[in-house]
Amino acid sequence: MLAKQERAVRTRRAILDAASELFNEVGYEATTIGALLARIDVTRGGLYFHFTTKEQLARAVLDEAVTLEGVRPQAFKLQEWVDIALLLAHRVPREPILRASIRLSVDPVSRRLFGTRWPDWIEVGHGLLVEARDKGELLPHVDPDEIARLLVGAWTGVQLVTEVLPERTLSEEISSLFALILPNIASSGVLARLDTSPYRAERLLQTAHSEVE
Amino acid sequence: MLAKQERAVRTRRAILDAASELFNEVGYEATTIGALLARIDVTRGGLYFHFTTKEQLARAVLDEAVTLEGVRPQAFKLQEWVDIALLLAHRVPREPILRASIRLSVDPVSRRLFGTRWPDWIEVGHGLLVEARDKGELLPHVDPDEIARLLVGAWTGVQLVTEVLPERTLSEEISSLFALILPNIASSGVLARLDTSPYRAERLLQTAHSEVE
Repeated sequence: MLAKQERAVRTRRAILDAASELFNEVGYEATTIGALLARIDVTRGGLYFHFTTKEQLARAVLDEAVTLEGVRPQAFKLQEWVDIALLLAHRVPREPILRASIRLSVDPVSRRLFGTRWPDWIEVGHGLLVEARDKGELLPHVDPDEIARLLVGAWTGVQLVTEVLPERTLSEEISSLFALILPNIASSGVLARLDTSPYRAERLLQTAHSEVE
Repeated sequence: MLAKQERAVRTRRAILDAASELFNEVGYEATTIGALLARIDVTRGGLYFHFTTKEQLARAVLDEAVTLEGVRPQAFKLQEWVDIALLLAHRVPREPILRASIRLSVDPVSRRLFGTRWPDWIEVGHGLLVEARDKGELLPHVDPDEIARLLVGAWTGVQLVTEVLPERTLSEEISSLFALILPNIASSGVLARLDTSPYRAERLLQTAHSEVE
């Protein structure tokens, strides 16, 4: 029974990965169930056990978009805010589902149908920035609302441009983005102790995995 | 003869505006010449005089995307760099062609066909930042390459998010973006004299127009 459940979880994942690749390559409108079946080792019946429509696939992709995997409690709340953005920068080029959720958000048609996850990301960032402010980590002029929204926008656009101009990795670009903005956000004592390295996300994920083992 | 030419210019503009609106609403793939004709007061023959394929329409949109209208020589090169971004922030919500050029750049299918104008924008910004550096306007650690690319990315993403969450205008958001990043770019004497107001673009355009009259 367990083996059967495990297989179902794996099949669902394989379907979502393949659907995400299609969304990324041809967009939401041009994606079809037929093209999806041609790409995966699953029967129509097997697919329908998990998803019966393209809409359900898109919603499932967006359901997984707001992920805090690898984020761990830090001495500074500002570090956790940075970590979320660095972790995503590390994972997005490696995980088709995360790229598809961005794709679905920038596409005018799918966006109209499903909305975007940007408000959720802004809320996550806002919560951390408010905590950071209350702990004295922010410069006095910083408005958590404004900065949370700007970071989600800036992160998204840097990802899109980096996809087209991949001279540097997304991790390097997001690291540079923080180096640019943090001196005007973090109070000076905190600033010197923040880690914005492009390799930080990899280390955070390794630590998380080795603890699980 | 002149009237005829003028009419042709106006017709071409009306066609491009309508095609841009379609690109924005339904995306490149779903846009058809039929839907375009249903929307404009031009015959099929009149359309074909200017454009015979959807591809030509997309290329014409992208040809107009890199525009410096309203930019004027300033005491600081950094101000010109800011002005370009503020002018675009003012114009993009008002001009369907400029929005369509962003739409075509973020869409995976049209991007594969036509590329994006991001490299051109990065080059424009880079040129100004190098001049700014040579005139001593930049802090010593600033890398014009890196900053030019980050700004194009950040600007694009802030535009996309603002479209979905229009609590503030794009001009206000881009003004805030500069307030966030300029203290870590401009040398301090220059910083105090830069104008990043959300109303600056409107003033620049009014001055340009009144001089033409």
